[in-house]
Amino acid sequence: MITSPDNSQLKLIRKLARKKARDEEGMFVAEGDDLVAAAVAAGWEPEALLWAGQDVEPELLDRVSQLGSGTRVIGVYRQRWAEPGGDLSVALHGVGDPGNVGTVIRSAHALADGPVVIGPETADPYGPKAVRAAMGSVFARPPARGRPVGTTVALDADADDVLAPVDGPVTLLVGAEREGLPADVVESADVRARIPLRADGPESLNAAMAATLALYVMGSRSDG
Amino acid sequence: MITSPDNSQLKLIRKLARKKARDEEGMFVAEGDDLVAAAVAAGWEPEALLWAGQDVEPELLDRVSQLGSGTRVIGVYRQRWAEPGGDLSVALHGVGDPGNVGTVIRSAHALADGPVVIGPETADPYGPKAVRAAMGSVFARPPARGRPVGTTVALDADADDVLAPVDGPVTLLVGAEREGLPADVVESADVRARIPLRADGPESLNAAMAATLALYVMGSRSDG
Repeated sequence: MITSPDNSQLKLIRKLARKKARDEEGMFVAEGDDLVAAAVAAGWEPEALLWAGQDVEPELLDRVSQLGSGTRVIGVYRQRWAEPGGDLSVALHGVGDPGNVGTVIRSAHALADGPVVIGPETADPYGPKAVRAAMGSVFARPPARGRPVGTTVALDADADDVLAPVDGPVTLLVGAEREGLPADVVESADVRARIPLRADGPESLNAAMAATLALYVMGSRSDG
Repeated sequence: MITSPDNSQLKLIRKLARKKARDEEGMFVAEGDDLVAAAVAAGWEPEALLWAGQDVEPELLDRVSQLGSGTRVIGVYRQRWAEPGGDLSVALHGVGDPGNVGTVIRSAHALADGPVVIGPETADPYGPKAVRAAMGSVFARPPARGRPVGTTVALDADADDVLAPVDGPVTLLVGAEREGLPADVVESADVRARIPLRADGPESLNAAMAATLALYVMGSRSDG
């Protein structure tokens, strides 16, 4: 039973709250029974696994928690990065909100077969808020880095065409919710398309909503 | 220029961070240029409007901010509650996350013509996180309380039928993302339907994703 806050595992967990440390160590933290169970289900071995009251004093675990008090278990895992691929996937560009990044990982796991490609200026999918929002899907379908595969479809509010299914492997390109994708990314995409929104509504959807809707529309070509 | 933290407007703003106070006063707070501009665009008059450096010392405004430092403006508004209605709307039941509630208000504004009906055990749409996530849509399309109108369609992961457009006025019933809707709500709905998800994916989508997708599917019968 760990009884000192100077324990090396607790120190590691504290450290991994920072992106720089996650990058350096290549590890990340998952909190809570559900996430730890999802890791087991997906066959991931933890680098460290601390159950409150069993491996560590509950108060000490709470103190290193990013989610506040009452955490029953914290696991440390080695990051995995997939290669871009699949028949349908989404690549994020400038999506800075970690909750949105995690939510897209979960939606893509539910609606598509490819990993979420983490592009420039996008929140770390292995940060605590992203891991929480992904709800276990980060274990089942780790994110990817690299060049999007297949036909690239840029979601662009100003596009003439309405989003519609496309044949063959396809990667949806989704940008920040207000700025959208950078102009050069939109121009170099194979297809530019928009989600049809009401004329009297907001100019854009939340980035995670846009990605989820677009995955659904693109995926309806073959399944469902 | 307000120079004392004991100023009554600053006290009111601080107080409205609590749901009980919002309920009692019937007011809420919106922070930031974008939200204040959205209020103007929708024709709302503020009860109070404090610009940093003009009406109040910036440091004092930061101290009452729920969003952290650097807030340029905070407005206080009187809550409005619409009647359920429209050809397409969504009613939330047990959606406790305020970010999800706000996101659904934004999505409904983009994809449907009816207000979001706030049901039992659902986060206050006038809380700071919900107002932020709704991104101005709370002014353009205030939430509703009351009985859902038209055909009620319960989103239920265990339903036999896949979600499909329905004629006439329709209200989608959306529950908490893991528990789903209470059994009696599902049973009393006119239609039970599910969003088709991959068999190897997560059991559910985030509640805001599910609501957004369902609104899109239901809305595709007439527009788009």
